[in-house]
Amino acid sequence: MASMNKVPLLYGGATSPFSRMAKLYGDHLNLDFKYELIDIYNAEFLDELNPLRQIPTLILDDGNALFDSRTIFSYFEDQAGCDLTVLDFQQSTRISLALGMADACLQYRMEMMLSENDRNEAKILKLKARMDRSVKKLNDWSDDITAGKVRLEQFVVACSLEYLDFRYTKNWREECGKLDAWLEVFSQRDDMIKTRPVG
Amino acid sequence: MASMNKVPLLYGGATSPFSRMAKLYGDHLNLDFKYELIDIYNAEFLDELNPLRQIPTLILDDGNALFDSRTIFSYFEDQAGCDLTVLDFQQSTRISLALGMADACLQYRMEMMLSENDRNEAKILKLKARMDRSVKKLNDWSDDITAGKVRLEQFVVACSLEYLDFRYTKNWREECGKLDAWLEVFSQRDDMIKTRPVG
Repeated sequence: MASMNKVPLLYGGATSPFSRMAKLYGDHLNLDFKYELIDIYNAEFLDELNPLRQIPTLILDDGNALFDSRTIFSYFEDQAGCDLTVLDFQQSTRISLALGMADACLQYRMEMMLSENDRNEAKILKLKARMDRSVKKLNDWSDDITAGKVRLEQFVVACSLEYLDFRYTKNWREECGKLDAWLEVFSQRDDMIKTRPVG
Repeated sequence: MASMNKVPLLYGGATSPFSRMAKLYGDHLNLDFKYELIDIYNAEFLDELNPLRQIPTLILDDGNALFDSRTIFSYFEDQAGCDLTVLDFQQSTRISLALGMADACLQYRMEMMLSENDRNEAKILKLKARMDRSVKKLNDWSDDITAGKVRLEQFVVACSLEYLDFRYTKNWREECGKLDAWLEVFSQRDDMIKTRPVG
């Protein structure tokens, strides 16, 4: 018997910034989906669906998987009936920058979890410099990011910045006053509070 | 005086699979742009344009930068007048998989360039497993990938597979016969030959 009323299943992780963005954005667009937190380090079952073993991964009701984050964001927009013909490549680049910053922070975290002996100090310095440069550029671009209605770009930037707070440092807040002031307000949204990583 | 007839400038790297894809795709779409190879390890000038210091980065005639690869691909399609309203999320996921495989291979290469003492063996094993799983899944999906006209998906998969050959292993070719047979032919394209990494 064909299953009825199945909704997509979004696999995420408790502290994954990319999972958080997808969950927030899907909810923001009022979509119906299940969200299941998994431990990515013990998720062999995911390999068959997403050989990269990365979250978020979205499982559709036909069993097919969609990834990466940006594919899922677009799918959500399509499902929600958003107008996908309006292209803003500068905005897309700002999103790339925030995603790349979060990815650098994730790599930094992985490196810091190694024993001091096993850490690659050159790599750590490189990742720190990348994060520092990126957050400054996002601050330069903060007028574009923070103006206008709540949208994907804002969720992506907010989650990336809070991930820096969580895994790296809050020092950026002193030098990046505009972004800090905006995030102070955006962070008080209910959905941001409910999805904030703890640990 | 405003500059006239300026064309976009695409920064790439001699062995970067993502740069190669962008160059190939832009040419395939008959776009007019300059392609400049840079040494990403000594490209401080790029930090101001792209704080992630990643290639490809596309510089528009107004001086603004576009990245990452997928933003550049979309921009190229928009410039070429492609119909961007036809969305195929399974195809987008296959592209994500090939890009993620190439990224795993790049990380693998970075790790192998370290002295034996500094290498993280657990990470190397993880990356190898990710590449092995990914190429098998691409082979499972090869009917979809190889059918139809030459398009972005095919350039991305072909460049990712050749990057595996170049930096990891050609062993996948035995187990993934369909993909191997397709690549044998696709690799003989002039544009593929001209952009093939050597070293």
